[in-house]
Amino acid sequence: MPADGSGAITRPDETVIKDLIEELRATFGDRVSTSMAVREHHARDFSFHELVPADAVVMARSTEEVVVIVKACAKRGVPIIPFGTGTSAEGHLAALHGGICVDVSEMNNVLEVNTEDMDVTVEPGVTRKQLNEYLRDTGLFFPIDPGADASLGGMASTRASGTNAVRYGTMRENVMSLEVVTAEGKIIRTARRARKSSSGYDLTRLFVGAEGTLGIITKVTLKLFGIPEAISSAVVSFDSLKGAVDAVISTIQWGIPMARIELLDEVQMDALNKYSDLDYPVEPTLFLEFHGSDAGVKEQAERMAEICEEFGAGNFNWTSNAEERDKLWAARHDAAYSAIALRPGCAVMATDVCVPISRLAECILTTKQDIDEAGIVAPIVGHVGDGNFHVELLIHPDTREEDLQICNEINRKLVERAIAMDGTCTGEHGIGQGKLKYQEAEHGEALNIMRTIKIALDPQNIMNPGKTVKM
Amino acid sequence: MPADGSGAITRPDETVIKDLIEELRATFGDRVSTSMAVREHHARDFSFHELVPADAVVMARSTEEVVVIVKACAKRGVPIIPFGTGTSAEGHLAALHGGICVDVSEMNNVLEVNTEDMDVTVEPGVTRKQLNEYLRDTGLFFPIDPGADASLGGMASTRASGTNAVRYGTMRENVMSLEVVTAEGKIIRTARRARKSSSGYDLTRLFVGAEGTLGIITKVTLKLFGIPEAISSAVVSFDSLKGAVDAVISTIQWGIPMARIELLDEVQMDALNKYSDLDYPVEPTLFLEFHGSDAGVKEQAERMAEICEEFGAGNFNWTSNAEERDKLWAARHDAAYSAIALRPGCAVMATDVCVPISRLAECILTTKQDIDEAGIVAPIVGHVGDGNFHVELLIHPDTREEDLQICNEINRKLVERAIAMDGTCTGEHGIGQGKLKYQEAEHGEALNIMRTIKIALDPQNIMNPGKTVKM
Repeated sequence: MPADGSGAITRPDETVIKDLIEELRATFGDRVSTSMAVREHHARDFSFHELVPADAVVMARSTEEVVVIVKACAKRGVPIIPFGTGTSAEGHLAALHGGICVDVSEMNNVLEVNTEDMDVTVEPGVTRKQLNEYLRDTGLFFPIDPGADASLGGMASTRASGTNAVRYGTMRENVMSLEVVTAEGKIIRTARRARKSSSGYDLTRLFVGAEGTLGIITKVTLKLFGIPEAISSAVVSFDSLKGAVDAVISTIQWGIPMARIELLDEVQMDALNKYSDLDYPVEPTLFLEFHGSDAGVKEQAERMAEICEEFGAGNFNWTSNAEERDKLWAARHDAAYSAIALRPGCAVMATDVCVPISRLAECILTTKQDIDEAGIVAPIVGHVGDGNFHVELLIHPDTREEDLQICNEINRKLVERAIAMDGTCTGEHGIGQGKLKYQEAEHGEALNIMRTIKIALDPQNIMNPGKTVKM
Repeated sequence: MPADGSGAITRPDETVIKDLIEELRATFGDRVSTSMAVREHHARDFSFHELVPADAVVMARSTEEVVVIVKACAKRGVPIIPFGTGTSAEGHLAALHGGICVDVSEMNNVLEVNTEDMDVTVEPGVTRKQLNEYLRDTGLFFPIDPGADASLGGMASTRASGTNAVRYGTMRENVMSLEVVTAEGKIIRTARRARKSSSGYDLTRLFVGAEGTLGIITKVTLKLFGIPEAISSAVVSFDSLKGAVDAVISTIQWGIPMARIELLDEVQMDALNKYSDLDYPVEPTLFLEFHGSDAGVKEQAERMAEICEEFGAGNFNWTSNAEERDKLWAARHDAAYSAIALRPGCAVMATDVCVPISRLAECILTTKQDIDEAGIVAPIVGHVGDGNFHVELLIHPDTREEDLQICNEINRKLVERAIAMDGTCTGEHGIGQGKLKYQEAEHGEALNIMRTIKIALDPQNIMNPGKTVKM
């Protein structure tokens, strides 16, 4: 039974698939692959979910080619699963009902940079690092940083965010417009290039976060920002986790514009020290960054230091040196790898709740009790300015069933706790198949509105079925 | 024929309405009104559109009461038009197909302020000034300022913004969650109180800007901001309109965080001087405001002055004094009244296009040619940081038909110009009935997706019919 609880998997008839693949080969030739290695590669993401490969993988190179694939699938009622870089985290790529995986990674052209308007239009396979490399000489950059070098189409689809959402927002705030191929193979553009609009329903925001279940994104128009004149980063440890969170709350209330503010618990700091040969205090720690003018960053840093001291902070390590900053954030981005290094060979079940920040310390501390009671080691890292944090639960292949049982139970309690605190089961990873079981509790009657929209826009249920909305 | 072009008005049968009103009277008593004065008051907005009163007006005092009204209307297929303060600008309140107006202005309680989380939940009839008055002692404020003291439910419904969207965003960015009564009378909550979420479709953004055509908003949860330590405002005139716009582009690229940046053309400045007895230079002028720390605001102001000088600015008038600032922004908010004072007795047709900022100067200057060619006087005022501006076209009752012909033609050319520049027909006023005719050109195939959503969520077409989406 698939994770969406919709009953037995009903894969399309084999002859239907055979006929479809033949039709696709006429257009795509070698770009249609049925090799198991290719199919498995395209079903694999950054999660612990089971591998369920599609029946074939097609490399698309243009919007028009995506239309050809969608129409060929639609006329047979065969599912379509879009693929960018395979860095999603909730089993988004599993072909739960068979079908065709559409790989858009070769649609990777930056189409148009408008420096005066500070926006860019890209094909969906362009990755965030590729985009920033491309923008290097313009003085502009795209800030959203989920850690992985994800494709921008994928980041839009999962409503991704990451370390600097506290300053720059998430994909929800930064996607200006999308081109989408709908379930019936029509090409639409969700909005124009104006900075704001009150013209009709907000289709951009409807497709951002829809995880390919309403259509396939074929172009993305994004906001850009000026590269700040000055950047200053710091690491500061606290004698209690609550002190660290309270310092952040106070900083936000004072309106100090932090660009990044990341919380790592003492378990995570210990793992980082071991993995990256560092010697940070093994205490709850904030990794900070400020963007602005020279004077502005200096002022912000001073105020931040005062606030942190008030809440039990220890020594502050500031740096404005680019190389040292890169090292600092590389360490932060290594959090997941350092967690895995605690038990080599593991996959990570990264929990992803997001709660009102007033409840964050309580939510983390109670969860740490659950972890202790289960007798496991699980580092915690959080985008604390947003109230979003991840527990890195480790699943080892040798003890998969046992580990899954323990970790699923911790995750379940955590999600229920977050929902009771008026939070969400996922701050940035998405629903995929992994979080479907929590949607009823989180959305209640609103889930029926989501279902109505899904049925209206994809009546055959062929767009990445079994994901995003529990049917 | 109604403005939506859907054919003749089909009003519900008189006996159906009579029966409905009787049923509503059983619950609402005196709060059901059929007096023409009340019905006309509730059909009137800030626009030039014709008055089309509903068959009755009901004052609702709770979500449950809204449900009662919606269910009574739904079972008879009778339209429902929500009313907040009557400050919309595109004929949103006209009962084009008859029906019941639901007045939520008495649902005006602030329900919950969370200072640590910096959010607030209000009933839809709370106005923005009422909210800020309520928040006075918390150190927090709600920034969105469309000029009029609109209701927050109405502002959400029209995706409103105003003078400080350049810094704080529009209602799209600042509504965290909504409670909505759907077309079948179900109560949903569109999101939880987490700052971000990747859980399912973004229903919040779907209802923000839907103008009551998908459901009635009964609660609004909003982001709040800390009142800045320092505020500094300025007025600066330029020797050309293009210089003023280019200065703004440069400022944004430098990342100088302006809180407000408003453009008034020389015609508007002349009108303001006359209306408010001021003596500003009659030149293209920027009204500016910076929010931040004392040192930060000072630094921003200095940089801004340097940039403006480069682009042909004249003398700068700075003030940090609260009283003087209020006077300055009162003058800016009087723009529409000062325009009307040019020809007393007129209604205003405020155009509302929004274009990529790189095209703004060209868009305004070409439009000024149209105005000159038509031989009329029409001031221009713009939220220049967003690329959004209004031409105040005047419609006098004595020459209504003639004025309408001239002004509609200028507006049509302007909208077509904006769309050709990849802009939108409405930056902040909404579609209502006034902009329906431009939707095909602006949205193309995407309009069919909007229609599909409307039909799926409101199959009887009873929620504010004839607005927002051309059917």
